[in-house]
Amino acid sequence: MEPHRRQFVALTLGAAAGASLAGKATAEADPLPSWGDGATKEAILAFVRATTDRASPQFVPPEERIATFDQDGTLWVEHPIYTQVVYCFDRVPVVVKAKPELANDEPFRTVLSGNRGAMAQLSMDDLLKIAGATLTGMEVDTFREEVVEWIGAARDSRWKRPYTDLAYLPQIELLKYLRANGYKTYIVTGGGQDFVRAYSERTYDIPPEQVVGTAGGVRYEYAADGKPMLIKEPKLFLNDDNAGKPEGIHLMIGRRPFFAIGNSIGDRQMLEYTKAGGGLRLAMIVLHDDGEREYAYGPAQGLPDTKVGTFTQALYDEAKKGGWIVVSMKNDWKRVFRFES
Amino acid sequence: MEPHRRQFVALTLGAAAGASLAGKATAEADPLPSWGDGATKEAILAFVRATTDRASPQFVPPEERIATFDQDGTLWVEHPIYTQVVYCFDRVPVVVKAKPELANDEPFRTVLSGNRGAMAQLSMDDLLKIAGATLTGMEVDTFREEVVEWIGAARDSRWKRPYTDLAYLPQIELLKYLRANGYKTYIVTGGGQDFVRAYSERTYDIPPEQVVGTAGGVRYEYAADGKPMLIKEPKLFLNDDNAGKPEGIHLMIGRRPFFAIGNSIGDRQMLEYTKAGGGLRLAMIVLHDDGEREYAYGPAQGLPDTKVGTFTQALYDEAKKGGWIVVSMKNDWKRVFRFES
Repeated sequence: MEPHRRQFVALTLGAAAGASLAGKATAEADPLPSWGDGATKEAILAFVRATTDRASPQFVPPEERIATFDQDGTLWVEHPIYTQVVYCFDRVPVVVKAKPELANDEPFRTVLSGNRGAMAQLSMDDLLKIAGATLTGMEVDTFREEVVEWIGAARDSRWKRPYTDLAYLPQIELLKYLRANGYKTYIVTGGGQDFVRAYSERTYDIPPEQVVGTAGGVRYEYAADGKPMLIKEPKLFLNDDNAGKPEGIHLMIGRRPFFAIGNSIGDRQMLEYTKAGGGLRLAMIVLHDDGEREYAYGPAQGLPDTKVGTFTQALYDEAKKGGWIVVSMKNDWKRVFRFES
Repeated sequence: MEPHRRQFVALTLGAAAGASLAGKATAEADPLPSWGDGATKEAILAFVRATTDRASPQFVPPEERIATFDQDGTLWVEHPIYTQVVYCFDRVPVVVKAKPELANDEPFRTVLSGNRGAMAQLSMDDLLKIAGATLTGMEVDTFREEVVEWIGAARDSRWKRPYTDLAYLPQIELLKYLRANGYKTYIVTGGGQDFVRAYSERTYDIPPEQVVGTAGGVRYEYAADGKPMLIKEPKLFLNDDNAGKPEGIHLMIGRRPFFAIGNSIGDRQMLEYTKAGGGLRLAMIVLHDDGEREYAYGPAQGLPDTKVGTFTQALYDEAKKGGWIVVSMKNDWKRVFRFES
């Protein structure tokens, strides 16, 4: 590097360090500005104080500070349809172009028709067929590039924004706050591990190795030129939902979290498992009760049952009984998205 | 915390920081003091310089700096028998005490007899039966405690020391050196993931979440009192050897390593996969050619084929052809163990 360029870099880094210190001072005043004052925010602050103060009887050594976040409905919007399902639908034309014989086969024909009503009626078997065709058969690096490209270009149907803009600002703050206090933050998602890993670093500052998700197998093989490759296989390896979440946490992390947050029945076991550990553990669950700024669904608390991200009244009751904190999107979040004015 | 205690902690931490700075100054003089001067050590230093200097065309961003280490025969001694196999044999009496009907069944009877010759003749099926009985069926936390207790008490047959003393000092230095340069260090072992995780942090400063190994399934269930538990299942989930190593790396890390080191045919695919990535990648393989200070086995280079940690001549040739660095234990390591004077 030439001297003047080196100097420029040093100055820039210095400025960045200054900015970061300034940011820290603000953060110390209120590390969670998008969270409204009240019991929920106080529970988070008290948990972090108690587990990070060496003088506290509930102190947790830094290496054991593991925090796990569900993704769909917890870190970003999951309605009206999971982002990954949109990805699969969007990839169908590309897959059919490569294999034209699929154009007249169901369920590809329905997807190609663009008939949203018919697509919403597709069975789980149909969806799995589409997932197999669009998520497997290629090199892992190729898949990653395809997802990165798609997520940069695709727009959601309501806000007309990139899906990554639909990450919840209060959760981005919470992730940062936990990390600033020595917590290692993980995504533990029922979604595809390779899919989420393609954008997790840029969106949540969570590196791929800290994303635990539903994973298919990969097959090691050699290209014609002898180059080794990993090919995505249509074989389910880890179904990281329900009981699969604590199982996946053990497999991929090997420690029980001290903090976990989810939003649906698929997160129940992760939250139970977290709370069942010794010492102070915090389990939280997001209730989507804000039909205006986002969506309102349950069926807990009489909210409509929309089948995506189901939060039953039984789960709500278990949360209350087990000392999990129910986060009301409507009441606990002052701001939902970064793009809100 | 009382004021004088707080002061004591501050002073101690201050002293530690001072010591660490002093250590850093020494490390900068020679970060790898147990490595003899020569081409091997120079290759490591050059690789780290090239991938961490922002001005270098081969600079690797910190988040992509992944280094993977095989364990048995690479980080610690694997001869004459894998430590985990000793563990399994040692656990047989405990298992038989709980299930006395096993005492007359093979292969448990042979293990109980203590006849080393007969034990060495046990078939792979027998060993798997012993592994199933000693490594599964209990809570993951219980298993961890059992391994921690055993590894603290057990002694190896040659040096009469804890197995963790048999970690190679040059490799401990290499792990530290890579970490000091922003590399995230992983163990990628054919051994049991849960077994190695029980002592990896204390022995190698590698946390459980950075141990990728052969993994059995776990089953989430509830105890009679409703407490959720994870039970180790006798079901192979990931066979982290041979092609399973790059597959496991993709599953658990999701990035291709820039540095990898192994010592046997089980590491071949990991090393190939590492070298096949873009940019500068370093693959190394340890040749056990020091029968005096440790063991000498191959059969590469005419060393005896002892069936544990096989390093064939074909692998040696592939290493030379592929630009992997062959580490000669005899010539490249000035000191093998920390306990040597």
